[in-house]
Amino acid sequence: MFVLGIDPGLSRCGYGVVETVGRRQRALAAGVIRTSTDHAIPYRLAELQRELRSLIAEYEPAVVSIERVLFQQNASTVISVGQAIGIAMVEGVNAGCTVVEYSPNQVKEAVAGHGSASKKEMERMVQTLLGIKTPLRPVDAADAIALALCHIAHQPAGALR
Amino acid sequence: MFVLGIDPGLSRCGYGVVETVGRRQRALAAGVIRTSTDHAIPYRLAELQRELRSLIAEYEPAVVSIERVLFQQNASTVISVGQAIGIAMVEGVNAGCTVVEYSPNQVKEAVAGHGSASKKEMERMVQTLLGIKTPLRPVDAADAIALALCHIAHQPAGALR
Repeated sequence: MFVLGIDPGLSRCGYGVVETVGRRQRALAAGVIRTSTDHAIPYRLAELQRELRSLIAEYEPAVVSIERVLFQQNASTVISVGQAIGIAMVEGVNAGCTVVEYSPNQVKEAVAGHGSASKKEMERMVQTLLGIKTPLRPVDAADAIALALCHIAHQPAGALR
Repeated sequence: MFVLGIDPGLSRCGYGVVETVGRRQRALAAGVIRTSTDHAIPYRLAELQRELRSLIAEYEPAVVSIERVLFQQNASTVISVGQAIGIAMVEGVNAGCTVVEYSPNQVKEAVAGHGSASKKEMERMVQTLLGIKTPLRPVDAADAIALALCHIAHQPAGALR
């Protein structure tokens, strides 16, 4: 099963594709979609849509796992993050994916074992779960991978093929 | 010129299509797209996208005029409104429309002449500008028409054909 994790944002949108084989996970792709602040928001959203669409077409994930944004977070960017989330959700639905959301705390709990995990702990756990030698960079890509891992951790063991 | 005004929302998204002929305006369509709270948000956004897409295909507006949501408004719905705005913006861009945003105060100023206009004053001015006998209903549809009228009011006189 392929899971696409998304750390949503308009200026920087992290993505990460994780493959599960039995109880092991492998990162197939991770990166950041950037849109230029030189352009107006509607055009930036359309660009984000095109990038996400081609990512989904390439990897055909079964699931798109998106960070749930809480109202308290990032007061100044909450609307543009909401816009980016909307685009990601619809691209997932239109491609036939299951679309799920997890809060930052759920991601920390699932990946590091407790909801108050630090950035460093999360980094190390993502590294361990993927069996890679150096921390995944950039950070938005690592956060997106953590979202994919969180969804995988929420599945009953038998469901992962 | 056709202008599609949008009062964005996930449960209720108002829309209104206004045609300008010289210095006169005529409402061609007005209504509300509703999505059911029985469905998960990604599916509701996809439904909203389909409805907006068919509306834009039918009327081929030159401009999509969307209410700019301020962070202070509707704390509990700001994220879902942001999601709906994102969908509307991208549908507009992908159809080749110019996409613009106006704040609630800009709409009041343009339509009623001052930023502190009451709901009742706005209703009456929309009625007067369209030359109709009864207030436009439902309210979300009237708000969307006001967004279209606001954009029209912002154009230099010669630009409206």
